[in-house]
Amino acid sequence: MGDSDKIPVGIVGASGYGGIQLVRLLLDHPKLELAYLGGDSTAGKPFAEIYPHLGHRVTQMVEPVDVEVIGDRCQVVFLSLPNGLAYKMAPRLLEKGCKVLDLSADFRFTDLQTYANWYGITRDDEAINQMAVYGLPELYRDRIAEAQLVGCPGCYPTASLLGIAPLLKQGLIVPETAIIDAKSGASGGGRTPPKTNMLLAEADSSFGAYGVGGKHRHTPEIEQICSDLAGHEVLVQFTPHLVPMVRGILSTIYATMRDPGLVRDDLLTIYQAFYRSSPWVRVLPSGIYPQTKWAAGTNLCYIGIELDPRTGRVIVMSAIDNLLKGQAGQAVQCLNLMMGWEETLGLPQLSFYP
Amino acid sequence: MGDSDKIPVGIVGASGYGGIQLVRLLLDHPKLELAYLGGDSTAGKPFAEIYPHLGHRVTQMVEPVDVEVIGDRCQVVFLSLPNGLAYKMAPRLLEKGCKVLDLSADFRFTDLQTYANWYGITRDDEAINQMAVYGLPELYRDRIAEAQLVGCPGCYPTASLLGIAPLLKQGLIVPETAIIDAKSGASGGGRTPPKTNMLLAEADSSFGAYGVGGKHRHTPEIEQICSDLAGHEVLVQFTPHLVPMVRGILSTIYATMRDPGLVRDDLLTIYQAFYRSSPWVRVLPSGIYPQTKWAAGTNLCYIGIELDPRTGRVIVMSAIDNLLKGQAGQAVQCLNLMMGWEETLGLPQLSFYP
Amino acid sequence: MGDSDKIPVGIVGASGYGGIQLVRLLLDHPKLELAYLGGDSTAGKPFAEIYPHLGHRVTQMVEPVDVEVIGDRCQVVFLSLPNGLAYKMAPRLLEKGCKVLDLSADFRFTDLQTYANWYGITRDDEAINQMAVYGLPELYRDRIAEAQLVGCPGCYPTASLLGIAPLLKQGLIVPETAIIDAKSGASGGGRTPPKTNMLLAEADSSFGAYGVGGKHRHTPEIEQICSDLAGHEVLVQFTPHLVPMVRGILSTIYATMRDPGLVRDDLLTIYQAFYRSSPWVRVLPSGIYPQTKWAAGTNLCYIGIELDPRTGRVIVMSAIDNLLKGQAGQAVQCLNLMMGWEETLGLPQLSFYP
Amino acid sequence: MGDSDKIPVGIVGASGYGGIQLVRLLLDHPKLELAYLGGDSTAGKPFAEIYPHLGHRVTQMVEPVDVEVIGDRCQVVFLSLPNGLAYKMAPRLLEKGCKVLDLSADFRFTDLQTYANWYGITRDDEAINQMAVYGLPELYRDRIAEAQLVGCPGCYPTASLLGIAPLLKQGLIVPETAIIDAKSGASGGGRTPPKTNMLLAEADSSFGAYGVGGKHRHTPEIEQICSDLAGHEVLVQFTPHLVPMVRGILSTIYATMRDPGLVRDDLLTIYQAFYRSSPWVRVLPSGIYPQTKWAAGTNLCYIGIELDPRTGRVIVMSAIDNLLKGQAGQAVQCLNLMMGWEETLGLPQLSFYP
Repeated sequence: MGDSDKIPVGIVGASGYGGIQLVRLLLDHPKLELAYLGGDSTAGKPFAEIYPHLGHRVTQMVEPVDVEVIGDRCQVVFLSLPNGLAYKMAPRLLEKGCKVLDLSADFRFTDLQTYANWYGITRDDEAINQMAVYGLPELYRDRIAEAQLVGCPGCYPTASLLGIAPLLKQGLIVPETAIIDAKSGASGGGRTPPKTNMLLAEADSSFGAYGVGGKHRHTPEIEQICSDLAGHEVLVQFTPHLVPMVRGILSTIYATMRDPGLVRDDLLTIYQAFYRSSPWVRVLPSGIYPQTKWAAGTNLCYIGIELDPRTGRVIVMSAIDNLLKGQAGQAVQCLNLMMGWEETLGLPQLSFYP
Repeated sequence: MGDSDKIPVGIVGASGYGGIQLVRLLLDHPKLELAYLGGDSTAGKPFAEIYPHLGHRVTQMVEPVDVEVIGDRCQVVFLSLPNGLAYKMAPRLLEKGCKVLDLSADFRFTDLQTYANWYGITRDDEAINQMAVYGLPELYRDRIAEAQLVGCPGCYPTASLLGIAPLLKQGLIVPETAIIDAKSGASGGGRTPPKTNMLLAEADSSFGAYGVGGKHRHTPEIEQICSDLAGHEVLVQFTPHLVPMVRGILSTIYATMRDPGLVRDDLLTIYQAFYRSSPWVRVLPSGIYPQTKWAAGTNLCYIGIELDPRTGRVIVMSAIDNLLKGQAGQAVQCLNLMMGWEETLGLPQLSFYP
Repeated sequence: MGDSDKIPVGIVGASGYGGIQLVRLLLDHPKLELAYLGGDSTAGKPFAEIYPHLGHRVTQMVEPVDVEVIGDRCQVVFLSLPNGLAYKMAPRLLEKGCKVLDLSADFRFTDLQTYANWYGITRDDEAINQMAVYGLPELYRDRIAEAQLVGCPGCYPTASLLGIAPLLKQGLIVPETAIIDAKSGASGGGRTPPKTNMLLAEADSSFGAYGVGGKHRHTPEIEQICSDLAGHEVLVQFTPHLVPMVRGILSTIYATMRDPGLVRDDLLTIYQAFYRSSPWVRVLPSGIYPQTKWAAGTNLCYIGIELDPRTGRVIVMSAIDNLLKGQAGQAVQCLNLMMGWEETLGLPQLSFYP
Repeated sequence: MGDSDKIPVGIVGASGYGGIQLVRLLLDHPKLELAYLGGDSTAGKPFAEIYPHLGHRVTQMVEPVDVEVIGDRCQVVFLSLPNGLAYKMAPRLLEKGCKVLDLSADFRFTDLQTYANWYGITRDDEAINQMAVYGLPELYRDRIAEAQLVGCPGCYPTASLLGIAPLLKQGLIVPETAIIDAKSGASGGGRTPPKTNMLLAEADSSFGAYGVGGKHRHTPEIEQICSDLAGHEVLVQFTPHLVPMVRGILSTIYATMRDPGLVRDDLLTIYQAFYRSSPWVRVLPSGIYPQTKWAAGTNLCYIGIELDPRTGRVIVMSAIDNLLKGQAGQAVQCLNLMMGWEETLGLPQLSFYP
């Protein structure tokens, strides 16, 4: 603190996985500085007591959550809280002039009825909610750049939408044939409170699906953006699975092509054009399919494309780090845009391998 | 050896993962005894030198592969070899009166042209090949019981076909909408020679697809049986993925229902009826989805079923242990049938959890 | 139930990892039958709701814990509860004629003051506690055979004591030089309540020590038995570590030899003699070191021995499945002895590999 | 290439794990540029064909290994080759004025007889070998700064020596009581050729020791430096283990204190003073023990210290990323010193968690 040309940033919900990612990213960002770390159960503790490996770099305490204090001290606030809290805090922070980026589901839906149906919370903050922009820069870059309030996408929607967007936007597929078979590492389950099915003893050496049949809350989020891309309402089949690993999401996307005459290289060209100005998306060469490990520790999304001429289907594979491009990294990417900086500023772009 | 009422069994290819499973299963089987262990690179070594943990139970040496010796000594022979070897050895073993169960792809295809197309080997053993029965007991129980030569199914086909069979057989789905998104543990990659992409350093903490777009050799195998079930040629979309774990396959199967009026409980009833006489298939109750871990170390297949009324699709999840029900266990299950024994004889049916 | 020549058995604490192991082992045991499943938070639920993969084999409900009911219905009771509960229940169960095997720490200590120091509970059941036998059959086989009450060993003590016992018993080492560097899979942390540091996201892809400096509660347990073996008080250096895997313990034991003239083969001979009548201990040949995986899913303990002539130290490696030989399997082994049956009856002795 | 104020660097052995780390580190280093990538089996291939995830950043081809070309083009050369090759290439590279950093064992030993005993290669390059400095900056910072040829330490020695150095240097322990129980992730086994025991199917879900009894080649390397620190010949007990994870080493070090009056805080003070000028070593506060994950993806070494007053032993835990601080990162750290730059320049110091 005290570096006068850096923007003071607050993180509310500092002790969860979203919080620790944000802290980590801020430490490497040339124009941001950590001005406030807020938590509930951890208030009063040094942050380094929760994450000792950062003890040499983070000396701050976790403070109680007080919106007035945050608003006074910070120009930018990341809210990394359970669903249903951010929409109560955001209005006052906005009033006080803060830019607000919410990592929960609170500001992802243009229709609050959809939010109510899926999250069980009826809200009357229609006006504020309308201010929010869906924070997927590759699709809504311009709107994000002008936003004060960003609802950052879920991890599955990020991987899935980046994979399917060019197909829907260009009208290349029959939308209702879209199936998204998605797989996530266990960090997606969060840290607190710990869940039995996320114990290493339970989740390691096993693989299974959950939320099958359109029951996962990321379904309406994916459909909202797919519908926006297609220009009409689209239903998708979305099935999440739990992979015995810490980080990473792979979405395998299937859809029937409208035009059976297109070949794989046509699709590669279309994807490359679509993402030409998107430094965080890497369209892979013919025959190369992404590994989630390639994206781990980076804000990158790797996309592989295949066509099956026998069945007339396209298969797209999209890999991200669920906690970076799928969460905190994307939030910082949005903030870069909101501040008028380079989209890549301060964000990690090289994983370690293996 | 010498237990006079036990059937002498030979295993060719004893040092691979198929071989070690078979050895392990034989040790617990009340009516089989290990009479011959054959290998190529390991010939002359005690089996316990390759797998020391079995040193107290297996004292045999691995012997050179000599079909005459095997045929003289064994009534039953399991061939657990790379593709393209079994079809050369099987004729002489059959002549000598052995029952032969092949774990490779050599005897899985009724059409040798399909085999040639996918495995690059042109054969002229049409007559022998016609004798072979596809060793999936839940579909071909009666024919297996009378067979002398069984081509045991691949691991992915086993999980996938058990999941989709009732749907195709009963005409419940539009066949060409079938998509099989399958995930396997790394033991499916085999032991020898070791492959770089199967190293723990490479495959752990990562997830990715391979053989995308119908390029995996299990595609024609799945399609052959699906076509048989449907009564007409069926193409399926099959995509395998590698999971960072040792054992287990989960196939997630999607298809569009013909009759949108069916509900999940109807499907459960249909599946339960279809598998009523199949002790190795467990159809799970409503809302329960299988974990691969449940099947690990057993010959069981767990099937979960879901319907998405919004999209009109059925989603079936099918979980097996790729090396048991997906390979060696199923071979023993076939042998039990061929010998007129209980299908469950001597096979493991309870995993350890967690 | 109803198989008239089977012994009715009760399990209290059925939903934890100890409970599920016991249920699993009972299903395969020829002389035991499950007569009662008791739990607290899960009372009233079908057991198969907690562990769906056993739905086809276990139809019982979890019942509330009522000592009178248990005592009336069961001849044998396994107590698989948090520390500090068993000592309250055991007296009444013994009065009613039950054999009691406790998997907690309550009956492991001959000196209740040691228990009070380490577990924070002051007890006055000296008389009952004196009845309890430490349930490590390889060391106390005869006493277990005559016991009504067995305090089953902890997982680390089992692996460590089996590794070091011949050295101490034969006076081969300088006792105060003994260092036990032990490593355990995450299932040792239990299921309920889930702990943050045991989440897959936390524990996978990492390795660390805990309870360093003699602070782990298994220290006094190991020392009690080491002292008994040595014939005088022995302090050992014990350090547990957490391995990113589900099952298994490896104890690496170091000690300085009294007689520098002994060679490795001498030690192998001594170990083989020591464990000649112990079917669950496998002393490995020269140069072979145990893998925890070899023991997974079995009641076996694999021991490897090495001597370093340069330093005059012996290094012993001892591998077990922490939930079987380290917990529930050993309890059944004890029960077999208490019933006058073969020590190996109904227990798994072959792992699946890989 | 072409950035005129950057130093041109060559990497020989670019396709192994050492090579890919170096490439990755160079991409983030402000004063180095990749001028040459050499390989044997991969010569002629684009580097991005071997590691596709770097395709957007590395456009170079792997070139055949030609010492003249390398020497002409590069000011600095990293040799990342199997043992026994570097000592043949280094002399000519040095002649041509290159600074040479070798990641193999070739230049780690002051006594070539020790090298011959353990690596089976008799050499007569005594003069060159005497030029080499052991590349552990925390112990030999000044000599490295002036070196032209550095023999970079092994991964186990790095973790172990950083953990034990203050104790030996200050004479705090009885040297012959030192026991190093070390645990490494599987990436330490290298990439090419792939080894059967390093397959995920073999190594996952298991834990075991190897090279027990002082047979691992890192033993003489550790002892050479320990002897240098102690001022007399020291033998240590070193046992490596394989952990089912990709990256990371933890060394747990035991030794008997000379002075039983010292307390833990005394030791912490001594360690903090010893490493005061070492930015890559983090001595953890009382009661905090390192997790390997904390160091993953960084050049850091985390050290935790504990005293057991009952036994009079110190227990030190030292955690590093085996491929960074244990290999390539340390090599770059050495180069920073050789170039007169900040020791931390361009090296990663923040892991991602979890």
